[in-house]
Amino acid sequence: MNKPERKSVDLDKVPEHTISRLSLYLRGLNYLEEQGVLTVSSEALARHFGLNAAQIRKDLAYFGDFGVRGVGYNVIELREHLRDILGLNRNWRVALFGLGNLGRALLSYRGFSKAGFNIAVVFEASPEIVAQGEIHGIPIRPIDQAKQLLPELGVQMAILTVPATAAQEVANSVVEAGVGAILNFAPLPLQLPPEIKVRSVDLTVNLENLSYFLHSS
Amino acid sequence: MNKPERKSVDLDKVPEHTISRLSLYLRGLNYLEEQGVLTVSSEALARHFGLNAAQIRKDLAYFGDFGVRGVGYNVIELREHLRDILGLNRNWRVALFGLGNLGRALLSYRGFSKAGFNIAVVFEASPEIVAQGEIHGIPIRPIDQAKQLLPELGVQMAILTVPATAAQEVANSVVEAGVGAILNFAPLPLQLPPEIKVRSVDLTVNLENLSYFLHSS
Repeated sequence: MNKPERKSVDLDKVPEHTISRLSLYLRGLNYLEEQGVLTVSSEALARHFGLNAAQIRKDLAYFGDFGVRGVGYNVIELREHLRDILGLNRNWRVALFGLGNLGRALLSYRGFSKAGFNIAVVFEASPEIVAQGEIHGIPIRPIDQAKQLLPELGVQMAILTVPATAAQEVANSVVEAGVGAILNFAPLPLQLPPEIKVRSVDLTVNLENLSYFLHSS
Repeated sequence: MNKPERKSVDLDKVPEHTISRLSLYLRGLNYLEEQGVLTVSSEALARHFGLNAAQIRKDLAYFGDFGVRGVGYNVIELREHLRDILGLNRNWRVALFGLGNLGRALLSYRGFSKAGFNIAVVFEASPEIVAQGEIHGIPIRPIDQAKQLLPELGVQMAILTVPATAAQEVANSVVEAGVGAILNFAPLPLQLPPEIKVRSVDLTVNLENLSYFLHSS
């Protein structure tokens, strides 16, 4: 059996939805590996996870020729390829902004370290919280030191759990400090230069959506 | 000045994206109200929050005729109308499934009660955790009692933070117990009847997306 070939990829040409689906495929492959499954066809992957087989083949084709005709994909090999493509076998230095309920919750969320995101520093506006010095061994610093400390600490991504009224200002200073990616939990769309990668998680929108459907049914 | 008129609305005809944008408009109006702004035009709303003025007018037109020509929207009135439309002035009984890190974090997330979601019961698989009896005054019950207790407690929505391997089975039993809405944090798409309203929050997909962009840039 030939080793699967990784293509040299023009990453700008890969659609964002493909990247999101790679995460779903990876989830599926992790699950199959736990169940002891060794090889899987795109049809079986699709059936298992409510996805589309043609779409799976097309998404993977951006990155190489991974399957073996008539056999399917080797589960462990494909998983490792997807982890490489997604950059999950590397570590990223992350700064958390805001240590309210959500910020504290995220500090104990193991999904961050599983994805290779290591929280190196926490920034807070409240002097009382900064005075605690650290949380779970991570230093807490005043938010007005962020611009200086972010480059010194080599931070590559910022997680924002600050209040909506502060989010845009904090995002601006993060970008000025050279950080290229933001995970935004503040319930407000951020206005940032197009080269900055932003993902927003708005629990409230999801909750209000469900409230609407309960209310209207 | 005339009172804004609420239309009688065929709610099945309102696009889901409109409902999500109503949440954003509500966020914007809350912010403007805190800043002491009394009236606002759709253009100003759009500029403030990176939205589209024509889209704002079209979205609101599904529900009634809220603005006054040449004046704009009364901030407090429009906010209360949006809260009514989204069902946020009502209370919903919610069951939380799974008391791991994320489940515990969500218990202290104040956004739930702000949206009128009251967590009435927690279901857990681990006998040790069930033996604690309660958390923050909310009873913890074994997960195999859910089917019986959900209707007894009048639960209308379930929040799933169980492991991916358990999520589909738990979702099935929730649906069999007559619950019509699910907020899913398990990293797996759920296969459910079309009349069940599901919103999925997958932090991992967002993290891996950012990892990919950091990795590829």
